[in-house]
Amino acid sequence: MPILPVNKQHQAYFQQVIDQKTKPLGALGALETLALQVALIQQTEAPQLTNPHIVVFAADHGLTAEGVSAYPADVTYQMVQNFRAGGAAINVFCRQNSLQLVVCDVGVRGVFDENTPDFVKFKVAHGTQNMRQQPAMTADETDAAMDAGRLVVDGLHHRGCNVLGFGEMGIGNTSSAALLMHRLLRLPLRECVGRGTGLTDDQLAHKLTVLEAVAERYRHLAQPMDLLAAMGGFELAAIAGGMLRAADYGMVILVDGFITTAALLVAHAVDPAVLDYCVFTHQSDEAGHQLMLNHLNASPLLKLNMRLGEGTGCALAYPLVQAAVAMLNNMASFASAGVSEKR
Amino acid sequence: MPILPVNKQHQAYFQQVIDQKTKPLGALGALETLALQVALIQQTEAPQLTNPHIVVFAADHGLTAEGVSAYPADVTYQMVQNFRAGGAAINVFCRQNSLQLVVCDVGVRGVFDENTPDFVKFKVAHGTQNMRQQPAMTADETDAAMDAGRLVVDGLHHRGCNVLGFGEMGIGNTSSAALLMHRLLRLPLRECVGRGTGLTDDQLAHKLTVLEAVAERYRHLAQPMDLLAAMGGFELAAIAGGMLRAADYGMVILVDGFITTAALLVAHAVDPAVLDYCVFTHQSDEAGHQLMLNHLNASPLLKLNMRLGEGTGCALAYPLVQAAVAMLNNMASFASAGVSEKR
Repeated sequence: MPILPVNKQHQAYFQQVIDQKTKPLGALGALETLALQVALIQQTEAPQLTNPHIVVFAADHGLTAEGVSAYPADVTYQMVQNFRAGGAAINVFCRQNSLQLVVCDVGVRGVFDENTPDFVKFKVAHGTQNMRQQPAMTADETDAAMDAGRLVVDGLHHRGCNVLGFGEMGIGNTSSAALLMHRLLRLPLRECVGRGTGLTDDQLAHKLTVLEAVAERYRHLAQPMDLLAAMGGFELAAIAGGMLRAADYGMVILVDGFITTAALLVAHAVDPAVLDYCVFTHQSDEAGHQLMLNHLNASPLLKLNMRLGEGTGCALAYPLVQAAVAMLNNMASFASAGVSEKR
Repeated sequence: MPILPVNKQHQAYFQQVIDQKTKPLGALGALETLALQVALIQQTEAPQLTNPHIVVFAADHGLTAEGVSAYPADVTYQMVQNFRAGGAAINVFCRQNSLQLVVCDVGVRGVFDENTPDFVKFKVAHGTQNMRQQPAMTADETDAAMDAGRLVVDGLHHRGCNVLGFGEMGIGNTSSAALLMHRLLRLPLRECVGRGTGLTDDQLAHKLTVLEAVAERYRHLAQPMDLLAAMGGFELAAIAGGMLRAADYGMVILVDGFITTAALLVAHAVDPAVLDYCVFTHQSDEAGHQLMLNHLNASPLLKLNMRLGEGTGCALAYPLVQAAVAMLNNMASFASAGVSEKR
């Protein structure tokens, strides 16, 4: 079943409600655009945000054997433990802004022995294959990872969550994101490849050489699902599946940075209507993200030169979404406040 | 007594604390710069934000008789009543982000008969004079308005507030702001004058003609205080006085948009050290604000095409300041979390 695009029948009415608030016409800029979008998604001039969550999908990448990342691959596992202990940036920002955090192991190398309500295990495998040598994932693994995303979103929807940010953790995943971007946006690979967690010039040149070899290997593929399987990873597949399901439910989808937007490119290739539900929370400092945003005709809320992932852009921008909704619900109109209108 | 610039003796240590957090070096971008600034202001790697406030200074402008604004002058009084009733954008955003709001009548035309703890009356006069015919304020009135700003900040400091956003309401006050900018930044008037609350092309041309006449009239003045007195208004003077006092106290100063930054230009001309305490919360859509920010070498946190005033940029950006401080206080280090560092 395709995603239902938002119904624009009441758009002029919602806009009128915004225009009657006690402020010069359009004076709240991007916040007004955001308020209109949430009103359209929820089909009401009094939308509500309920049980907001960030979900972080974590997985490892076989391509790290080729030396494409500034950090050792162990960091994926270590950072998941950091998430579970509450010490990572995403934990801090979620607590600060009253968002619930769920972490999902969809393919981390290593075993997590404890189970907690905010830690979900849907491990497809202990990391993807080295895609320079064989496809990162099989078709079955790709399905399983997308299913993990759908299942998490099912669970959150069941808990009454109607606004959901997607984040990721996976050493090496800017390589997958850059390759998917290269193929889905038909842009030269060098415009898609960046420094990730902080490569030097030499390391960046090496990464580009490796990714050129990978791109060449899968040049014959054209379908989005085939590209996703070949280029990985599990967390990108989970995000793509989760976003498509979230749009099905009419949730507000918070889109983070470079990796998350690459996953959205896959979801968008499957069903472009997913975009109606997407709020772009920030523009990453990773080279290439601006080009992805241009392709999607997206204007992100924040531009703070961040390049951390984990859904941190979503968590930091969430108060702006709340403010847009509060404006709709709680701001007086010229008539109700007895304020004179423009001459 | 001049303002003490922040002590940079411990800057390298604070930066090291930030660099040891579990994230790639610099990956939190502008949030890291902000965290460092707050650490420097408070001289600790564990800063705290206490009893945060927004203060909105409201006043009327005699120049509105010349038809420089899209809204009738009565709107200043009406919007103050809207603030007091809790229906304006700044009320909504302050409630959303747990900021206390104080409104100060420093020169509104009209009488407010009730007194409430969050409404302060320091009315200098019922609006400024028409500056096309005579200086907007006398020297005594300018002092009185600056004193109002200082007194409000004294009161908030006494209440334990250490982070304070400044906002304003005053139909016609983009004219004062543009004129002050023109003189203090030595920029052509046409680069300083914008559409304010929404002038048409013809109305904008008229505004420019009026402001050219005003600028010509006070061409002989050079001192910042003389320019402030001549070009108004009471709320700009109160903000300038309040900011200088807030810097004296070592408070974090949240700077809003075009008008508030114009008031800061005056404060900055009096004592440049005030800048050490200023967090620039947003870039206004009003033409000229970008040039002001360039002059102050400032990078604002938000750029949402807003042009509302009231301190709304401060209120919307405040969660980012909280997040920066929470990052310093609550994020794990590589050592404490057992995460491997860069190769």
